Amino acid sequence: MASLSTTPSFTSPPHSCTAAASRCLLFFNKLYLSPKKSPRKFAAVFCSAAPRRARPDYVPNRISDPLYVRVFDTTLRDGEQSPGASMTSKEKLDIARQLAKLGVDIIEAGFPAASKDDLEAVKMIAKEVGNEIDDNGYVPVICGLSRCNKRDIDAAWEAVKYAKRPRIHTFIATSEIHMKHKLKKTKEEVVETARSMVSYARSLGCPDVEFSPEDAGRSDREFLYQILGEVIKAGATTLNIPDTVGYTMPNEFGQLIADIKANTPGIENVIISTHCQNDLGLSTANTLLGACSGARQVEVTINGIGERAGNASLEEVVMALKCRGDQVLGGLYTGINTEQIVMSSKMVEEYSGLHVQPHKAIVGANAFAHESGIHQDGMLKNKNTYEIIAPEDIGLYRSNESGIVLGKLSGRHALKSRLSELGYDIEGKELDDLFWRFKAVAEMKKTITDDELIALVSDIVFQPQVVWKLGDVQVTCGTLGLPMATVRLIDANGEEHIACANGTGPVDSAYKAVDVIVKEPITLLEYSLNAVTEGIDAIATTRVLIRGENSHTSTNTSGETFYRTFSATGAGMDIVVSSVRAYVNALNKMLGFKNQTGVFVNSENSRVSV
Amino acid sequence: MASLSTTPSFTSPPHSCTAAASRCLLFFNKLYLSPKKSPRKFAAVFCSAAPRRARPDYVPNRISDPLYVRVFDTTLRDGEQSPGASMTSKEKLDIARQLAKLGVDIIEAGFPAASKDDLEAVKMIAKEVGNEIDDNGYVPVICGLSRCNKRDIDAAWEAVKYAKRPRIHTFIATSEIHMKHKLKKTKEEVVETARSMVSYARSLGCPDVEFSPEDAGRSDREFLYQILGEVIKAGATTLNIPDTVGYTMPNEFGQLIADIKANTPGIENVIISTHCQNDLGLSTANTLLGACSGARQVEVTINGIGERAGNASLEEVVMALKCRGDQVLGGLYTGINTEQIVMSSKMVEEYSGLHVQPHKAIVGANAFAHESGIHQDGMLKNKNTYEIIAPEDIGLYRSNESGIVLGKLSGRHALKSRLSELGYDIEGKELDDLFWRFKAVAEMKKTITDDELIALVSDIVFQPQVVWKLGDVQVTCGTLGLPMATVRLIDANGEEHIACANGTGPVDSAYKAVDVIVKEPITLLEYSLNAVTEGIDAIATTRVLIRGENSHTSTNTSGETFYRTFSATGAGMDIVVSSVRAYVNALNKMLGFKNQTGVFVNSENSRVSV
Repeated sequence: MASLSTTPSFTSPPHSCTAAASRCLLFFNKLYLSPKKSPRKFAAVFCSAAPRRARPDYVPNRISDPLYVRVFDTTLRDGEQSPGASMTSKEKLDIARQLAKLGVDIIEAGFPAASKDDLEAVKMIAKEVGNEIDDNGYVPVICGLSRCNKRDIDAAWEAVKYAKRPRIHTFIATSEIHMKHKLKKTKEEVVETARSMVSYARSLGCPDVEFSPEDAGRSDREFLYQILGEVIKAGATTLNIPDTVGYTMPNEFGQLIADIKANTPGIENVIISTHCQNDLGLSTANTLLGACSGARQVEVTINGIGERAGNASLEEVVMALKCRGDQVLGGLYTGINTEQIVMSSKMVEEYSGLHVQPHKAIVGANAFAHESGIHQDGMLKNKNTYEIIAPEDIGLYRSNESGIVLGKLSGRHALKSRLSELGYDIEGKELDDLFWRFKAVAEMKKTITDDELIALVSDIVFQPQVVWKLGDVQVTCGTLGLPMATVRLIDANGEEHIACANGTGPVDSAYKAVDVIVKEPITLLEYSLNAVTEGIDAIATTRVLIRGENSHTSTNTSGETFYRTFSATGAGMDIVVSSVRAYVNALNKMLGFKNQTGVFVNSENSRVSV
Repeated sequence: MASLSTTPSFTSPPHSCTAAASRCLLFFNKLYLSPKKSPRKFAAVFCSAAPRRARPDYVPNRISDPLYVRVFDTTLRDGEQSPGASMTSKEKLDIARQLAKLGVDIIEAGFPAASKDDLEAVKMIAKEVGNEIDDNGYVPVICGLSRCNKRDIDAAWEAVKYAKRPRIHTFIATSEIHMKHKLKKTKEEVVETARSMVSYARSLGCPDVEFSPEDAGRSDREFLYQILGEVIKAGATTLNIPDTVGYTMPNEFGQLIADIKANTPGIENVIISTHCQNDLGLSTANTLLGACSGARQVEVTINGIGERAGNASLEEVVMALKCRGDQVLGGLYTGINTEQIVMSSKMVEEYSGLHVQPHKAIVGANAFAHESGIHQDGMLKNKNTYEIIAPEDIGLYRSNESGIVLGKLSGRHALKSRLSELGYDIEGKELDDLFWRFKAVAEMKKTITDDELIALVSDIVFQPQVVWKLGDVQVTCGTLGLPMATVRLIDANGEEHIACANGTGPVDSAYKAVDVIVKEPITLLEYSLNAVTEGIDAIATTRVLIRGENSHTSTNTSGETFYRTFSATGAGMDIVVSSVRAYVNALNKMLGFKNQTGVFVNSENSRVSV
């Protein structure tokens, strides 16, 4: 990346992105018309590890550097809406803290009107993460989503107002198909609702209001200009343009942004944002083309999670800008600390239960994989031959490179300090519990890797409040007899319950024994198990996804009722034991939610698709 | 999609793509400049299910319809190079048959010079799949990859020459960094090698020769024009332009294709092809922009698998063209039978061991997921509100929609006919074995779903040649004692071997017992397990990835030695039993490869990255 001194100066006002956008498009169009004049050098084939540029001061509706692109992370809102990705408040807070380390500009922390639990989670994030200002004055904006109605906006403001930089994000559909079939409103009604609700959000004292015309990718262009112009007048500071169904082609989306920039009255006073779904696999390209056409905020999620095929991946968009920003993307850059990408990816994968495929760009297990190799003839390998990103730029270090290996002789201090290096700040009883499990594993294995430590942390620290606790489990199975299992659970009052059951296999037997004790009608939707490191004496993590049959329904904006689902993990060296741990954890998560339903001001539990 | 009658006629010669390319770029540039003239209709928001257009007759270096885009599938070559994705010849043949059902124009079946096994697999595919001509005259081209040397080209020709339409694909690196560090050749030497080897391939009698300048995305533009011009003169019929390191931005790659089209002498006599790696998540966008700039062949893989972050996904590229081809991609179309996409995806996921993330576009488990929903107020749901593709267009049918449910009373005929509907043609001893397992499962479960059937097929039919066979396994484990396992294996001579072992858990114990019998030093690299349907009484599939410690090395084109790895699956209702099955299957796969090493003409075992 170019240093600050090489950034060209712009004569246009700081809040105008026109010059930068033009330059960016120019780059695309002109770059290779005179190939002789731009011979490729080796220096240009690899991401430079140049220091990050300074992040401009935060002003809601303008950015002093026209090349700076804000990163708006919606992992906790759009990502958490994925089937089975429901997270506890504790998990959400952990992720928000990690997003702040990553340096995202805005954290969309949830949809406060959905439930009391959702509101409380956003409030907690606003109070804690939204007030931790670093030495450079950075603190993430904390944003809450709301539909275009007063109750939603009140709930959003109640949740985010504790943050140093609060934002309300409100939306309404603007495509014909959505207005007709979902909203059942005329265009005029939609404009009036949007205008008045943006105005209402500002009237509450919120200085930073984002507006999204849902399904903008399929909306009438002139109508878009009109409604966007009205909400600008009403006080919106950011206009987000969602391709809700992931339908547009890259240049088509770029053109949409350029058209909005060219035709919307007052657009020079606000920030344009992208929000691209991935239904055709084009979300990253669409986002980048949007930025090149003048968007200065990109809405993304870690690992690209989200409903259906998910959203644009933070890591792909950010690394594309880092790798090619100066060369072909007009000098655009972000404030992301890319070395936190791997940790963020792992945490979100763990908490959402949405695994990342091995060939996922940037963060997949194979993305940097080179087969365990030895140099045949001592030839010096040139990394740049096939790698365009240095693994350490995204925070990818192999366990055996760190030089620190924990084993059975390692003490509590060594454990705490390694955890701290891995990004986990664990103390008190949680550290005690973890140390006890660590020693038990260390007795059976010579060394414990970072991945195994993280699995233990997840199993012990980041779990829902305990209703039921696993005492013991014992199984016999195989091809020669009927599988059977005995389970001992301890309830919230400390009482022991023992049951045994037969089943089609050891896990089926054990789960049936748990069901005999817990007496909750549930369906097991998914079950999976992975060894966290090489070697079968490794710790295995089981993940289950369950659905309660009698409760936990919610309603989405289309008026459909759906069942909430709950995922949880369990770790252990015995796969049957880890399987039972996961099942009991998921039950606890479900029972925890059950205790909260029906308490909140807004009975209209909701999901949204912006 | 428009019917044939609305396809515009072109006055340019059939083999020239200029007019179509111009029209396509024009679409991008002009589409939204006059938004009032193109109001959006509901009809335009959903993929039409119009009948597929006729596929033009195959001529290597020209396509009669300038809008037709050839699909070149390299799942069996580039995909199979992924760590752990090594497939048996039987698996490769199954996939090739499925690719023919899918209607791909070209199947790159492998890299015949890599090993005897690779050559034999390509030959078998050429003989069988490459000669099955359908009623419309369609038969896929069978292609073999080779580096630019006579031995490789000889091996490729030996493998593909049995096909009705054989193709040799040869490549050499053209970027400065690759020429200097990997090839250690001057530009002149590289041009001469390319020219003479293309000429050599033609001289063998191969009428269809594809040439790729490896790392074209980072190659000097003028040098590219020069070398491409030379290989055209030497007889190349397709020029493939790989973005080997997944480094280019979409418009940048489109410009690269446009420049090559504009500046390479003789280019009007050949087909231009794209090959985009996915390192920055842009492979689908790059491929589409390449097609819009004049490429009429796209190299893709099922599920986007491949080395590192993989390749452009066949399903994403094809569905983008199907959904938006007529609207914004200049009318481009393919000959793919999209209803075979889901089956192709499942088969490749199963055989490669590369799982697909839930939020993968088109084929991910969540791509069409709507939370189990009931209509709250009886409102008719408009599918188009959020879905842009009808699930049935890609062959996605839920088990309970098919109306066919197999149970314990179902006979052999019902099983065979359901398997046939699912795309599996199974007879004789394989059907007998499958029926026996089917009945055993049906005894324990009321009904058996399609997913479970597929798991059983995979466990019984599509497995490597048996060296060791699992007799019985019995384990005891839990939190209350030392896990232990007894295993009985049967060797190739029918002799029984029994061993018991203790371990950290039931699987560790059982695997150690297997090791005691088999005596092969191996490392378990990955272990994972999934229930194939809802409910824990479902069949579970275990996948393991192993590496032999004393053998099975190979060498890649950079001169590095790497260890070959082997994956296999096992299915069963008892997760310990399915785990042992998977382990024994992987051992058999490895032992099968071991018996073949060192036999082949070409000692220089190789991997490539085009």
